[in-house]
Amino acid sequence: MMELIERALAGDRQALAKLVTLVERGGPEARDVMRAVYPRSGKGYSVGITGPPGAGKSTLVGKLASIAREKGLEVAIVAADPTSPFSGGAILGDRVRMPQHYLDEGVFIRSMATRGSPGGLPRTASSVVKVFDACGKDIIFVETVGVGQTEIDIIEATDTTVVVLVPGAGDSVQTMKAGLMEIADVFVVNKADRPGAEYLVAELEGMLHESPKQSWWDVPVVATQAVNDVGIDELYRQIERHRQALEESGRLAAKRSGQRRNDLLRTIEYSVMTEITQEIESDRQMAKYFEKVESGEADPYTVARDILTNEALIENWLQRAREKRRQVGG
Amino acid sequence: MMELIERALAGDRQALAKLVTLVERGGPEARDVMRAVYPRSGKGYSVGITGPPGAGKSTLVGKLASIAREKGLEVAIVAADPTSPFSGGAILGDRVRMPQHYLDEGVFIRSMATRGSPGGLPRTASSVVKVFDACGKDIIFVETVGVGQTEIDIIEATDTTVVVLVPGAGDSVQTMKAGLMEIADVFVVNKADRPGAEYLVAELEGMLHESPKQSWWDVPVVATQAVNDVGIDELYRQIERHRQALEESGRLAAKRSGQRRNDLLRTIEYSVMTEITQEIESDRQMAKYFEKVESGEADPYTVARDILTNEALIENWLQRAREKRRQVGG
Repeated sequence: MMELIERALAGDRQALAKLVTLVERGGPEARDVMRAVYPRSGKGYSVGITGPPGAGKSTLVGKLASIAREKGLEVAIVAADPTSPFSGGAILGDRVRMPQHYLDEGVFIRSMATRGSPGGLPRTASSVVKVFDACGKDIIFVETVGVGQTEIDIIEATDTTVVVLVPGAGDSVQTMKAGLMEIADVFVVNKADRPGAEYLVAELEGMLHESPKQSWWDVPVVATQAVNDVGIDELYRQIERHRQALEESGRLAAKRSGQRRNDLLRTIEYSVMTEITQEIESDRQMAKYFEKVESGEADPYTVARDILTNEALIENWLQRAREKRRQVGG
Repeated sequence: MMELIERALAGDRQALAKLVTLVERGGPEARDVMRAVYPRSGKGYSVGITGPPGAGKSTLVGKLASIAREKGLEVAIVAADPTSPFSGGAILGDRVRMPQHYLDEGVFIRSMATRGSPGGLPRTASSVVKVFDACGKDIIFVETVGVGQTEIDIIEATDTTVVVLVPGAGDSVQTMKAGLMEIADVFVVNKADRPGAEYLVAELEGMLHESPKQSWWDVPVVATQAVNDVGIDELYRQIERHRQALEESGRLAAKRSGQRRNDLLRTIEYSVMTEITQEIESDRQMAKYFEKVESGEADPYTVARDILTNEALIENWLQRAREKRRQVGG
């Protein structure tokens, strides 16, 4: 295990791929990997790219990766997509999505289905970003579809968030105001040769103008045509500008220390919850409660309240969880 | 509150809409609603429809709803879509998605963003289905995009799951085998007038033939052209057949009692976790651990282990959580 980690940290692509798989799987091995990579992470920079299906996110990421490669940077691309079992993303994605980078040793492409981690690590995508970071990737792009809870978690784990929209999707930007204004550091209007592009840019700029000002950063709106290489340099420049603004204002350091705190809290919560769930499920005293609920005699919420006010029951779970913990030695 | 619930149960559409909003918001009010509706639920039948963006799911659901209406059934449609802040689904969706049903009092359409419930109820979509069920909806369609964790949770909460695919999406079905075979009760190949439809049907049938047999149900593959009204009757018939097979084999009752058990476990877990998180965050003894992690001196996983083996610390949280619970009286 430590040998695998050493090899990945030294730049071995195969070892890195295995490490990422271990982290995706979760469990005790994933924690060992994370413990090893954590102290080495922090040099890389992560960029989240989100937007609706068909907005051209993969193409944009491919072009941004090309610019990064021209600057001599090591690149990783993580495509985290809840629809990937349909599109084959998690399996075929590596080759299909970014043909221009597939043979480039300096670009590591990884697709992952966001099917939830089976255990140990609550936020897999953010852990995968840390693995890439520790293994020498200078810039890590994370592509997600939509803004469900999984996607929000991923976005919160990246340094700069780019929200990609396209003109003429038939809906006014006004309707999605709340959700997107919160998360966007940079807006992109892609497929800007389409009718309605100028209007969409103006609409976004108007909304940004009305929203509360941040003294350290004005969210820019960049018009791009990813397939025609139009606007990509400007987008890359705005991402760099945002990084600089984050660094100079001390916000990058604060953000990352907040992420570390979060990782700590989530890990403790997850452990305690797993312990308690195991105790509940194996507790014979619970049988009568389960029966009541399963038969439909009482609703789960009322029974949950009954259980949570039964101190002897809870005390018993905690006691047993404590004993187990003592036996394992942590 | 009880008046609102009574009105919704009596069929008042506005009251029902408010109830659903309360449940979506989560928190103590949501639990009160769920406590009230739970005993009344169980008569309705829920159908999950999932598939990639652009597969024509909304059109299919609209057509299925029409058939249900012709049979005199009360219908609810829940569109749970992680991309809805982009497509405007959660706000505009009610009118835009299903123009033919918007003025029909017998169809209640509700779009919801899957942005995670803020508190109290871990699985909002499944709770919303129960609300519709209790308020007299005979059939509840739940439309989701993709198969991320959120979507899997939703699908698990419905009685019959329909997976919609389209030919010529450029990828082989083989690649998504594992994910879809697990969840599909009925496969649909929509846009079956497109080239490759027959091949896709044959491919799916071949895979189903190879997969382990269930004695009580053979997963059918239905070819449809939703926009041309082709195959919809057959799809509706297969959904009814699946319902019948579930009922006759005793699996529907077992599934629902399993769901109730799950609702109980999730509610307890959620409550315990929330209690503990509050204690951790407000515990002054935690300051030194937070500092270590925030400064980067130690990684979160190692510190989490240190904390979880510090019995005095955990004992203290539990003691305080217990006292609070005693004060509140549950």
